[in-house]
Amino acid sequence: MGTLRVELKKVVDDSYDIEIGYKLSDKLIEDIKNGLAGNVHRFAVITDSIVEKLYGKDILDKLIAAGFDADIFVFEEGEKSKTRQTKAMIEDAMLEKGYRRDCCIIAVGGGVVTDLAGFIAGTYGRGVPFINYATTLLAAADASVGGKTAIDTPLATNLIGLFNQPNKVYIDIATWETLPQREVISGLAETIKHACIADREFFDYLNDNIDAILAMDKIACEHIAEINCKVKYEVVMKDERESGLREVLNLGHTVGRAIETVSDYKLLHGEAVSIGLVAEVLLANKLSYVSDEEKDAVIKLLDKAGLPTTIPDYIDKEALVKKLYTDKKVRDGKLRFVLQKGIGDVVEFESGVFAKPISEEEAREIVMSI
Amino acid sequence: MGTLRVELKKVVDDSYDIEIGYKLSDKLIEDIKNGLAGNVHRFAVITDSIVEKLYGKDILDKLIAAGFDADIFVFEEGEKSKTRQTKAMIEDAMLEKGYRRDCCIIAVGGGVVTDLAGFIAGTYGRGVPFINYATTLLAAADASVGGKTAIDTPLATNLIGLFNQPNKVYIDIATWETLPQREVISGLAETIKHACIADREFFDYLNDNIDAILAMDKIACEHIAEINCKVKYEVVMKDERESGLREVLNLGHTVGRAIETVSDYKLLHGEAVSIGLVAEVLLANKLSYVSDEEKDAVIKLLDKAGLPTTIPDYIDKEALVKKLYTDKKVRDGKLRFVLQKGIGDVVEFESGVFAKPISEEEAREIVMSI
Repeated sequence: MGTLRVELKKVVDDSYDIEIGYKLSDKLIEDIKNGLAGNVHRFAVITDSIVEKLYGKDILDKLIAAGFDADIFVFEEGEKSKTRQTKAMIEDAMLEKGYRRDCCIIAVGGGVVTDLAGFIAGTYGRGVPFINYATTLLAAADASVGGKTAIDTPLATNLIGLFNQPNKVYIDIATWETLPQREVISGLAETIKHACIADREFFDYLNDNIDAILAMDKIACEHIAEINCKVKYEVVMKDERESGLREVLNLGHTVGRAIETVSDYKLLHGEAVSIGLVAEVLLANKLSYVSDEEKDAVIKLLDKAGLPTTIPDYIDKEALVKKLYTDKKVRDGKLRFVLQKGIGDVVEFESGVFAKPISEEEAREIVMSI
Repeated sequence: MGTLRVELKKVVDDSYDIEIGYKLSDKLIEDIKNGLAGNVHRFAVITDSIVEKLYGKDILDKLIAAGFDADIFVFEEGEKSKTRQTKAMIEDAMLEKGYRRDCCIIAVGGGVVTDLAGFIAGTYGRGVPFINYATTLLAAADASVGGKTAIDTPLATNLIGLFNQPNKVYIDIATWETLPQREVISGLAETIKHACIADREFFDYLNDNIDAILAMDKIACEHIAEINCKVKYEVVMKDERESGLREVLNLGHTVGRAIETVSDYKLLHGEAVSIGLVAEVLLANKLSYVSDEEKDAVIKLLDKAGLPTTIPDYIDKEALVKKLYTDKKVRDGKLRFVLQKGIGDVVEFESGVFAKPISEEEAREIVMSI
């Protein structure tokens, strides 16, 4: 009878760069030639059926022209594809083509693509390098910092996944011009969320520049991409495992993710988050953390951006209340909410605790009121 | 246009203890009470249909008696259960019961259980703690050190998975007494492999004590559990990412895993590895890294342990040669083999390189000869 100690203390460096700019695919190829993926020569470009034609194929062609082995793996666009089945389908296609551990995955697309491809990269051969080439505002806001990758299951959103850091992230602002207006608007919800939790000045900037952003003004777009990454980075760097502070990024998401699922993904992620932000600012107002004026300002900005601020009629509100319990923040069977403190800050309930237990009755009352 | 640097350099401590002893379930509960899983109160015991009755239920009952919330999740025993489907089935059952990130997984069983449960733990809620309670010699030899977790897919064995370290491993030697003789013998293949790659003295010990081990002599069993862990630990500690040195643990596995798959799992993992060890010692002998006497000694010890040393007639040898290309060590489309250097050492082909490219003709010749 004895005990053997396995010592596995080590320094891990998952640092990476986020590059923000216009038409970055040539830069991507150049970086790969300069060793971004180590000495890997085989690349799996993972993308969806829309982005394939717009940017995926172009990156594939450039990789091949540069002398690399590369294939493209395409799945049907949309949040509904973020499943175990899609993950398995791509893995099997990669296995079929003989991909082993000596490959690199390049995710080209929005948040669904980067979430899914990052998860595939994390478990393929027990982990291969990956690069995110983000083509949506939402991916710029949400998928560039934090290393969160996941798929959805019938019973929960984003609960099966990994923390997995990319080798590099490219935010190609030129790609935003080809986004449907609805997608651009959806992406702004995370941007407004970032302003609400961390940056009052940025909130005012958004208020003043929302039209310029919607018109794809380059300077405004670059600015919001940068601030989004910075806000998220500040939070994530301090708490990579989402134990405390990082929960503040969940503002609007407790209700938002539940609505997204209950809507059967008729609502885009950002649209659902927008309604979640409304619900949660109402809750914060009710609990006196946010003034009436501040509450109105948040709802007004979401509205001005073209985002929904009420729950659509087709949503079963009781089902929504029940779905709240699938939230990752639920602890000991209790709902927990992050709450704004005015605009640009969040409530720290005790040291390192940023989520507050809320009774089902309180949650139901808010849900029923919007 | 700008670049934002995400700094994620940090010290990670994945150290853990392996406890070797008799009837360790009370010790497990005591350790949990003393904080082994942090302040987690909810435990998912994952086991297979055979181990459930022998040890799984007992651990479940003890957890509940100690005041913890606990459920047991059982899948059909056997390597064929190590699939995406089983992973999804257990995850969905855990979601259904309301398991969130504040839980701990306890894997009770052999290598299939610890591989599968460790992978589930790694992706459930993007990672929850897990504890391995190993009930087979194979799990003691193979699943206690290294952090390798995975599932099999129709196209490849162990290619989808994670490196994920447990909070603690228990090797309960009392459980070996309930193993079918065939399982015990199968487990010895990894033990003999460890002797071949790293410890000539241990090879001689096995030669002298194989009957005592098969008779479940406690001192002999404890000794082999300890040496197995130590050999593996020495290798793994020096190379956690399996980039170079760790490949030596693949001795016998290039051919072994392919046979295991082509046999449609009629062969147990250890049985397949035994045949793989024969194939690879023949290759090493042909390439003059192993003398005729040493080659004969390896085959003789495998035979003495009751392990198969020839390819069963029902195996399609051409299919086997083709299957070799799904090995994780394949690089640039070339087969690569780890080769013994005498007994107790392996060939280092150049600094840090322990696998040698072998032509399909050479591999086929060996496969056809046994």
